[in-house]
Amino acid sequence: MAAMFRKMVIAGVGLIGGSMALAMRERGLVEEVVGYGRGEKNLRVALKKGMIDGYFLRAEEIPNRTDFLVLGTPVQSTAPLAEEFLPHLEQGCIVSDVGSVKAMIVRDMEKILPRTIPFVGAHPIAGSERAGAAAANAELFVGARCIVTPTARTPPQALARVRALWEGVGARVEVMTPAAHDRTLAWTSHLVHALAYALVRGLDAADPTLLAGGGPSLRDATRVAASPAELWRDIFLDNADAVGDAIGHFAGELARLRDAIAAGDATALQALLDAAVLAKRRSENLS
Amino acid sequence: MAAMFRKMVIAGVGLIGGSMALAMRERGLVEEVVGYGRGEKNLRVALKKGMIDGYFLRAEEIPNRTDFLVLGTPVQSTAPLAEEFLPHLEQGCIVSDVGSVKAMIVRDMEKILPRTIPFVGAHPIAGSERAGAAAANAELFVGARCIVTPTARTPPQALARVRALWEGVGARVEVMTPAAHDRTLAWTSHLVHALAYALVRGLDAADPTLLAGGGPSLRDATRVAASPAELWRDIFLDNADAVGDAIGHFAGELARLRDAIAAGDATALQALLDAAVLAKRRSENLS
Repeated sequence: MAAMFRKMVIAGVGLIGGSMALAMRERGLVEEVVGYGRGEKNLRVALKKGMIDGYFLRAEEIPNRTDFLVLGTPVQSTAPLAEEFLPHLEQGCIVSDVGSVKAMIVRDMEKILPRTIPFVGAHPIAGSERAGAAAANAELFVGARCIVTPTARTPPQALARVRALWEGVGARVEVMTPAAHDRTLAWTSHLVHALAYALVRGLDAADPTLLAGGGPSLRDATRVAASPAELWRDIFLDNADAVGDAIGHFAGELARLRDAIAAGDATALQALLDAAVLAKRRSENLS
Repeated sequence: MAAMFRKMVIAGVGLIGGSMALAMRERGLVEEVVGYGRGEKNLRVALKKGMIDGYFLRAEEIPNRTDFLVLGTPVQSTAPLAEEFLPHLEQGCIVSDVGSVKAMIVRDMEKILPRTIPFVGAHPIAGSERAGAAAANAELFVGARCIVTPTARTPPQALARVRALWEGVGARVEVMTPAAHDRTLAWTSHLVHALAYALVRGLDAADPTLLAGGGPSLRDATRVAASPAELWRDIFLDNADAVGDAIGHFAGELARLRDAIAAGDATALQALLDAAVLAKRRSENLS
């Protein structure tokens, strides 16, 4: 088929942006990929690995005829970066992102961009604690979920193209409102990261040798605590209400367990654990 | 070499007991393995899979000349089961266990057993959310830690044999006091399981579809919540003080994160996350 996009600019050629570039090129979904970023070293890695055809370092140097701009930077940089690019974007260029928080970004982007430069929010759920272009791979999105968050203002054509691109690289696309996305992710991802960070802090404070000595369950539970701090600081702050809510509810569940343990109440404890085991096993049959 | 044990009885041929049987037979560390349990169906699976040479269903039927008895049942069944076996054990038989909690078990066993039937507490850290003989495998302990918890009363000979057996199946043996074991495991394992159970309960309460929809981080964080509820009820209750302490400290760390998020305090939040990332990465270089 004809390439879906002519010239794609990826601002932030990290794990996600770099993998998009590789996956789209390999599948013929884009003709030309140009990288943008502040770290020239990372861009040179991306160029050498064949992810991008070239790169630029200042927003005003964005190539002519760019028809797809992907903002792949940490979530609090997305809107400021769009403002930098805006004077140099051509009509009809579609702007998208890959951020883990959507309500704030979508609201900001719809304020900044004119209707002739449509924004389509997207969030491929395929991150990892690894970062940078060096960790990118063309199969990262195969079988992964990608949540796309259009609003009443999103042109159906632009939505269809972004959706098709994600399906083209192997993702299972789901459409949600930005708010529903943020509530869902607060539970399924942001809370999980908060727990991992808190667990590592607690272990390290209790005895710094504990972290290296655990078994597989500890390794799994703390894996994402190696994720970049700045990235997650911004995600937590951008989705503060929903994350605070999820942490609060979680803390209540943990207190219930703790109380049953402290009371030596085997019946209550068993009931709490039974319900969890049942829910977990049910979810495994569904997923 | 000559087999280390002549006749081993495994009471509870589950994941750990079944894997011990397979691993020890394969490496010539035992001549004969006999299973004991209340579920005949599971014992038949073990027999069919060649884990055991035979089985019995009542404690008084324990074979003559048994020189090694491994209690592989949930932790609160260990002492009552030892009492059932005691009248039928021969002098010099070594008794051991594989329980995730040690102080209470070691204390109880040293009360129940005479000095002529030595107890050596052991905890191979190689569990999984999978259970039963069907999940057993001969390589389960290769590279895993096994904590052995002797006391002043433990005969050095008995300790040496249990230690050699675990090293023989590939484990890295560490010696700790029962209390040190329990404090360590409260943090590195029991807390991790409590978090997984609480997380699954929270997600399920918020929206039962969330659990099936998450990405790799959620799957990893909730994996052990499929672990048998009875087993973990007993572990939590047997190690209640240390587990309550670890949950309390963890809750404090989580509250610190939550407060920084709620206050929108980027500097404080970044400092908390930076420390966690640093500790996690340092531990990866050590392990």
